[in-house]
Amino acid sequence: MKILITNGTVLTMDRAMRCIKDGAVAVENGNIVKIDNKDRLAGFIEDESATCQIIDAKGGIIMPGLVNSHTHASMTLFRGLADDLPLMEWLTQHIFPAEALLTGELVHKGAMLACAEMIMSGTTCFCDMYLFENEVAKAASNCGMRAVVGEVLYDFPSPNYGALENGFEYVNNMMAQWRDDPLITVAVEPHATYTCAPELLQRASILAREHNAPLIIHVAETLSESEQINEKYGKSPAAFLADLGILSSNLIACHSIHLSKEDMELYKKYDVKVAHCPESNMKLASGVAKIPEMIDNGICVGLGTDGCASNNDLDMFLEMDTAAKLHKVFTMNPEAISAETALKMATINGAKALGLDTITGSIEVGKRADIIIVDSDRPHMIPLYNPYSHIVYSATGSDVSTTIIDGRVVMKNRKLISMNAEAVMDDVIQAAIKISQNDVKKP
Amino acid sequence: MKILITNGTVLTMDRAMRCIKDGAVAVENGNIVKIDNKDRLAGFIEDESATCQIIDAKGGIIMPGLVNSHTHASMTLFRGLADDLPLMEWLTQHIFPAEALLTGELVHKGAMLACAEMIMSGTTCFCDMYLFENEVAKAASNCGMRAVVGEVLYDFPSPNYGALENGFEYVNNMMAQWRDDPLITVAVEPHATYTCAPELLQRASILAREHNAPLIIHVAETLSESEQINEKYGKSPAAFLADLGILSSNLIACHSIHLSKEDMELYKKYDVKVAHCPESNMKLASGVAKIPEMIDNGICVGLGTDGCASNNDLDMFLEMDTAAKLHKVFTMNPEAISAETALKMATINGAKALGLDTITGSIEVGKRADIIIVDSDRPHMIPLYNPYSHIVYSATGSDVSTTIIDGRVVMKNRKLISMNAEAVMDDVIQAAIKISQNDVKKP
Ligand SMILES: [Zn+2]
Ligand SMILES: [Zn+2]
Repeated sequence: MKILITNGTVLTMDRAMRCIKDGAVAVENGNIVKIDNKDRLAGFIEDESATCQIIDAKGGIIMPGLVNSHTHASMTLFRGLADDLPLMEWLTQHIFPAEALLTGELVHKGAMLACAEMIMSGTTCFCDMYLFENEVAKAASNCGMRAVVGEVLYDFPSPNYGALENGFEYVNNMMAQWRDDPLITVAVEPHATYTCAPELLQRASILAREHNAPLIIHVAETLSESEQINEKYGKSPAAFLADLGILSSNLIACHSIHLSKEDMELYKKYDVKVAHCPESNMKLASGVAKIPEMIDNGICVGLGTDGCASNNDLDMFLEMDTAAKLHKVFTMNPEAISAETALKMATINGAKALGLDTITGSIEVGKRADIIIVDSDRPHMIPLYNPYSHIVYSATGSDVSTTIIDGRVVMKNRKLISMNAEAVMDDVIQAAIKISQNDVKKP
Repeated sequence: MKILITNGTVLTMDRAMRCIKDGAVAVENGNIVKIDNKDRLAGFIEDESATCQIIDAKGGIIMPGLVNSHTHASMTLFRGLADDLPLMEWLTQHIFPAEALLTGELVHKGAMLACAEMIMSGTTCFCDMYLFENEVAKAASNCGMRAVVGEVLYDFPSPNYGALENGFEYVNNMMAQWRDDPLITVAVEPHATYTCAPELLQRASILAREHNAPLIIHVAETLSESEQINEKYGKSPAAFLADLGILSSNLIACHSIHLSKEDMELYKKYDVKVAHCPESNMKLASGVAKIPEMIDNGICVGLGTDGCASNNDLDMFLEMDTAAKLHKVFTMNPEAISAETALKMATINGAKALGLDTITGSIEVGKRADIIIVDSDRPHMIPLYNPYSHIVYSATGSDVSTTIIDGRVVMKNRKLISMNAEAVMDDVIQAAIKISQNDVKKP
């Protein structure tokens, strides 16, 4: 099986940030095998043109699929259920009661909708944390998305697995089920420092190391979290994790907003990865992570949307735009995060954070073909002086025309191929009726 | 001529924030004549159905067209030409040299592209400031957009009119040409406090009052501007304008970022209007205007995109999203700007700021039909618990299916009707070649 994606500007996002005008990418058995000027690649199809699919980018931008480094996919179920509220009221009055209704079936439906939205907005890989997570893995697998998935672990009983002991068993079972899967990676995902006892965290860390799996946790998302941990353990969340021996290069510390200089030094020392979710952090008024400083310190930062309930979409194009602009105004420095840096966070650095950079995150020979085409034949994409600028500041997910994951075309000309979009939307519309009735019952 | 827009959720944005499920809006000769449940409005077409156009919203959201209260439309010509640079380098090395190439013809081409982009993203009215502004007026008129237009006035010679004296003549001519036009309002637009002498400002103010026209100016956009004015006049830009007698209810003070408590009191006292441009202010690292405080003080705030060179798009949906989120995190208060407040800024309050609220900005009987339909049959718009939340946090301009201005359908099913989009895009692509060559010549 060959695919030739041709007639576009190729943004490789490789180390040299190569950008090929009138370029093309040749794919064979899902692997990227050649990247070159389109005329020089015309021969790729000559021998056996019958088995080669040609995709015409029509002068648009050919780029790596985006990597959403932190989300809770199934929270599409709660998109717009409650907004603009203080965090605790939002959580306890709306989100928790809604989550109490969750079943594996509902989580699967929400995840399918999320996959539809992500594929349609150019995301080819996402990193997820939720309940009934095996259903998210199945959803991603069903529609051909690359995903890092992990059941959320915490001290209190889970609506999914009950007692914590069963939680670890659930994770072990997931690991067994998806071992060697080409798309699904199972991670170990304790929820946060304030919801997980030291024993849980250490056990999770050991399990992750045993399986060479990512360890994923929310860190320093809110000031009150930092205060709680400080009160309980006399140190910051980052120092607490460091002292437990958990900081390491396989740790993805989501948010990491309220970090001291010392915390950042710890991240640097242990090569901790960060998943930055600016829109969610803004919407929940959690604060602004010191991303430019992290990047200056050589810390690897990926970009994420967080769940739909606090964003309220999964569009990584909007997230890049916001990231680039937010840090400029927050530091009063227009050079704080450039378009190129924002795009790196959403592609190659996200892949690095997830430990998947040999597979995805850039268009390079030998990687799997996780590739999207962005249309530029639209008023808001004209003229085109600089493709990086356009991708970050002018495009939205709706400008993606084609999405290819692991060498499989999952959307073409904005039509989803690997799933029935109408059925997926109907499922969630039906589910939302019950969620809504449950919500209005609250005082 | 009758139009019935039916089968959608009508967000009226009227004083009571009426929201009609399964609603419809009846339009006759460009006027909104009835707003009701769709079944009760079915009779509207019965008498003379031959002359009634029926537009099916297919369950989407029917809402007022968006009002972009501050932009420089023709700067689409420079979209992405230079980004992520310190303000002075950006201006002097890239924007000013590019603007030196401007002609009336180029400004017209850029404005046509802007109109295409705005109509396609649901903006039905914009407030513009630029050079060769009569060409912007013509462009808006050509493609049926509502616009407030004004030639930029400053102390130094203009590439358009030369000496300032001619500038006032140019404005007078524009006023004569467009008097009584149903779509075009001519404003008086001195550039800023640091580029206009007191005499210019006072003369502009008098001219605006004589014609009952809006007076539009950039105020307190950067810290260096405030410092300059303080050095020169010993007061803040707002106090400087107050002492010149210029603050009044017809004044639209764009940006107004660096305001003291006293400045805000002055705005309140004189009913000064504010055009807030969060994305541009973020991208140029200018600062964050104290919008929640202004609104608490009863100051009328509209929302704007500013020019494309500092945004880099004209999508008011993205601007609403950013406004709602930015102020939450900047004040660390998730209730700072709600979805409803953001949508008011982009509709009725923008119309109020421009003095057009008897004509546009809401769906109310007696107003002109400036109406858009937002599709909700897409993965990222599902489920629908709260239409305000969806419009602000989930939708983008690409979700607008139909745009009606002054009772005329200018876009239907995402096809532009009032202009030739291909030709408009080609014109700017050609123009950009010269602009690009001129730009790379710089060291
Ligand atoms: Zn999260
Ligand atoms: Zn401006």
